Amino acid sequence: MSDQGADTDLVRACLRQPVSRTPVWFMRQAGRSLPEYRAARGEGSILSAIGDAALAAELTLQPVRRYGVDAAILFSDIVVPIHAIGFGVDIEPGRGPVMAEPFRSAADLSRLRPLEPEVDVPYVAETVRLVARELAGSGTALIGFAGAPFTVASYLIEGGPSRTFSKVKTLMHSDPELWAELMDRLTAMAVASLRAQIEAGVDAVQLFDSWAGSLSPAEYHRFVLPATRTVLEGVADLDVPTILFGVGTGELLEAMGTAGSDVVGVDWRVPLAEARLRIGNECAVQGNLDPALCSAPWEVVAQATREVMASGSNGSGTGHVFNLGHGVLPDTDIGILAAVVDLVHQEGARG
Amino acid sequence: MSDQGADTDLVRACLRQPVSRTPVWFMRQAGRSLPEYRAARGEGSILSAIGDAALAAELTLQPVRRYGVDAAILFSDIVVPIHAIGFGVDIEPGRGPVMAEPFRSAADLSRLRPLEPEVDVPYVAETVRLVARELAGSGTALIGFAGAPFTVASYLIEGGPSRTFSKVKTLMHSDPELWAELMDRLTAMAVASLRAQIEAGVDAVQLFDSWAGSLSPAEYHRFVLPATRTVLEGVADLDVPTILFGVGTGELLEAMGTAGSDVVGVDWRVPLAEARLRIGNECAVQGNLDPALCSAPWEVVAQATREVMASGSNGSGTGHVFNLGHGVLPDTDIGILAAVVDLVHQEGARG
Repeated sequence: MSDQGADTDLVRACLRQPVSRTPVWFMRQAGRSLPEYRAARGEGSILSAIGDAALAAELTLQPVRRYGVDAAILFSDIVVPIHAIGFGVDIEPGRGPVMAEPFRSAADLSRLRPLEPEVDVPYVAETVRLVARELAGSGTALIGFAGAPFTVASYLIEGGPSRTFSKVKTLMHSDPELWAELMDRLTAMAVASLRAQIEAGVDAVQLFDSWAGSLSPAEYHRFVLPATRTVLEGVADLDVPTILFGVGTGELLEAMGTAGSDVVGVDWRVPLAEARLRIGNECAVQGNLDPALCSAPWEVVAQATREVMASGSNGSGTGHVFNLGHGVLPDTDIGILAAVVDLVHQEGARG
Repeated sequence: MSDQGADTDLVRACLRQPVSRTPVWFMRQAGRSLPEYRAARGEGSILSAIGDAALAAELTLQPVRRYGVDAAILFSDIVVPIHAIGFGVDIEPGRGPVMAEPFRSAADLSRLRPLEPEVDVPYVAETVRLVARELAGSGTALIGFAGAPFTVASYLIEGGPSRTFSKVKTLMHSDPELWAELMDRLTAMAVASLRAQIEAGVDAVQLFDSWAGSLSPAEYHRFVLPATRTVLEGVADLDVPTILFGVGTGELLEAMGTAGSDVVGVDWRVPLAEARLRIGNECAVQGNLDPALCSAPWEVVAQATREVMASGSNGSGTGHVFNLGHGVLPDTDIGILAAVVDLVHQEGARG
């Protein structure tokens, strides 16, 4: 853990401690929406960019310079660990992660050997060190992340992005033993990846269970929550705040609030005040401006931002990390995002 | 309204009256999953098939013969009315409705003239009459349908299927007057379409607000619920049961329960017992087996079906229409769907 991290508003908000102003960052803040990103990335593949620590550090820092957000998030991808151990994955522009050979049966477990971060993904720790050095003393935190076991499994089994999650649901129900073994491997992988990032200097970590909202509450409890808990327990001794996030999780928030994270991220469908009731008082909340609104006229976005601020405040002004309800959309007006940061800082300033 | 309709379990369940057994039908039960559908459809476009009353009647009846479901649903599409008035829409196989020129501004309102069903879509009433004649006295109901104003608007404005609904959300927030005018036109169109179907002989109607779940509760209340109510009021005097359905509507069920429908359809994310609490006692519930599970082994599907039956029962065994939580997926095992019908009939049999 970097030394300055504990002094940032981001970390304090995650821990429900007093902040100087409500911290704000945006999921997918680094990316195609930024012209400087498109210029720096050029034609190479995203996995190559992630593997180039100097470039990845630059891409991580770009949105901090452009927006003045309170946190950088490591430029990486949730499939980097499975790519690094040779599972066979490509990230197709405009589509997402696609598996060369999807996970189908117990025989595929052998393709998921343990991750050795220092050997398999040395560039990740190197990127963290480069960014942490740059941010030292700035008051800006660095967030690391991993894919939660269910969401990574959904890519492995579906073979790519899915709208129905039919194959992954079928596997968990029809072969619970194989599912448990797969979850165990992906849990260990997430823990190893997060620990390496924390040891290299990130100040907080987010666990992306982006597609958990496709599940019924019963499925989430039985097939997903135990592994999620184990990941979070696996980094608890390292003493950085943890954020658990998914989309469309209205029915799951109560369960997610028991997973052991410091913060639960919420999409735009559930007002934050209502989300707090479901999640419980042991967690901070993160969110939840609708990214689809960020190409609307400024008055619309400003009004929506104020509503999120009002709903996210728990009265004492602590325990809210402002974010979008999901990632920045590629055609978002970046001037609007800059104005959102300013407005959050202005509205969320204290003392 | 056909005379036999009131004597079907489907209609009685919608009205929370005693049934001989829990009725079951499947959204998208007619379609690509059936070999007899693929054989009958051939190479023509789906809009041509809908315009051919004899063919559309045959496609409507195929799933009744194959599965023994308690309701046929008219073979049609929610964009048929806008197609018929010349807005310019095609249904692309595997993608969905695509607009030649999306709705962008007030100037486009003139492209949405009122629907005159007897002139614009005479084949719809003809299909209803053909199917109603075939089903007379069989105990199988015929369901008509329309797209709810928001969901039709989302196609008009986005230009096709969307994952973000960014353009439609931007329009409703940034130009509420134009949005209200658009809703008025689409409300009148849905009412005209539903009234024509009811007068031709359907026994119940479903209003598909499939994508309402993309909205926040505040957006739904302000921009969508009023128009939905007006549609339902517009057919109330014709005295057939109405069903209101959307996907991912957990946060909206309370509002949807006040829209004036007899039934609210629920996807698989909210257990039906919980859905009843949100919707209130004035409505029956429809759903909610996860369609993604229908290619799993039978034991998995059977267990999930029993859970839906248990959760859907309100104690007195009334007020539940069994269905999937969304449409049948193209690669669904149709033997499984037939077995689901048998199991629902067996488990839901009374007296």
